[in-house]
Amino acid sequence: MDLRLYAVTDRSYLKGIDLVSAVELAIRGGATIIQLREKEISSKEFYELALKVKEVTKHNNIPLIINDRVDIALAVDADGVHVGQEDLPAEVVRRLIGPDKILGVSASTVEEAVKAERDGADYLGVGAVYTTLTKPEADAIGIEGLQKIKEAVSIPVVAIGGITQENAYEIMLKSEVDGISSVSAVFSGDVEENSRRLLQTIEKAISDRRNLKW
Amino acid sequence: MDLRLYAVTDRSYLKGIDLVSAVELAIRGGATIIQLREKEISSKEFYELALKVKEVTKHNNIPLIINDRVDIALAVDADGVHVGQEDLPAEVVRRLIGPDKILGVSASTVEEAVKAERDGADYLGVGAVYTTLTKPEADAIGIEGLQKIKEAVSIPVVAIGGITQENAYEIMLKSEVDGISSVSAVFSGDVEENSRRLLQTIEKAISDRRNLKW
Ligand code: NI
Repeated sequence: MDLRLYAVTDRSYLKGIDLVSAVELAIRGGATIIQLREKEISSKEFYELALKVKEVTKHNNIPLIINDRVDIALAVDADGVHVGQEDLPAEVVRRLIGPDKILGVSASTVEEAVKAERDGADYLGVGAVYTTLTKPEADAIGIEGLQKIKEAVSIPVVAIGGITQENAYEIMLKSEVDGISSVSAVFSGDVEENSRRLLQTIEKAISDRRNLKW
Repeated sequence: MDLRLYAVTDRSYLKGIDLVSAVELAIRGGATIIQLREKEISSKEFYELALKVKEVTKHNNIPLIINDRVDIALAVDADGVHVGQEDLPAEVVRRLIGPDKILGVSASTVEEAVKAERDGADYLGVGAVYTTLTKPEADAIGIEGLQKIKEAVSIPVVAIGGITQENAYEIMLKSEVDGISSVSAVFSGDVEENSRRLLQTIEKAISDRRNLKW
């Protein structure tokens, strides 16, 4: 599971391109995993969209994670499910999806992170690192908060919330997280170019991190 | 499966009593099956509510059907799922829930009804018989539309949409449907008394229907 550039969809950022094409561009640029997140559509529309996105992710051998809706994930045989603290409990999701599918859980505190790992999470989405327009209510935990949670668990951690081309390097360099997750940094503007630059930044930070340890 | 009085929850009709108590009152009055329908709450809240409602339905040996959300139905081991035409396709739901759980499908045309039966539905919710405040956009099919659909399928049919204490008798008497489904006729006002009167009306209509055939 390569979590370095974890792209989360949001149609409100897409100007004139459809979501399936945007996912294709994100993957072409370097996204290593895709999360489909939809809140305002019918179950039928979500299902049909997920089927289309899965064609693209499968063709490119990139995992597809469905946000919140375990039934949609099972219906399209997605690679996994991501749940937040307001979604189905992680241990219930693990029971529903079985041992093989990927389970991601959002956590913003050490307690939530440790519980999620115990409840069967394969990775954590941790943040918000900084406050965002997508989730303005989220309390930012900063790079320090990220480090604390990363140290408290043994599963991979992806940083979420408020990540940009400008701060991605510092976040990756200073924390030990395994990747960066973003909606806007990927899907606002030139999706393929955004992904390409972000992945380069992430790769450079990981490489510099290793060198610093020497 | 006793579909005679099929009560569908809607919290917006409940004045001062919580949903779980309202379901208990509906069952005490005579509801023969309960559908939990929630659109505006988080998956976690839906799950927790469904767990509580299931305690009541199970204790009373009444089937609990979850609207739309197959994952919630599986998570709480409900007795079944009800899907509309904008939810997951019936054949997908049947695959997810297995052969034993109840699958209900909404249909407003003969074509939808026949397809739903073929796709694995155990019963149909057919309407709207009359237009309603809950679904003002629904085209009313009337008692004639109901009869046509009932004749076209071999699975049980429940009439939905615009049903009141006043029109329930005529609907049941004239059509061959197996039951009446309602939100408002059950949950507006005195829930237990509503259910008791509705079930009496339904029973009288079924009895009169039999006598008319003699
Ligand atoms: Ni190709």
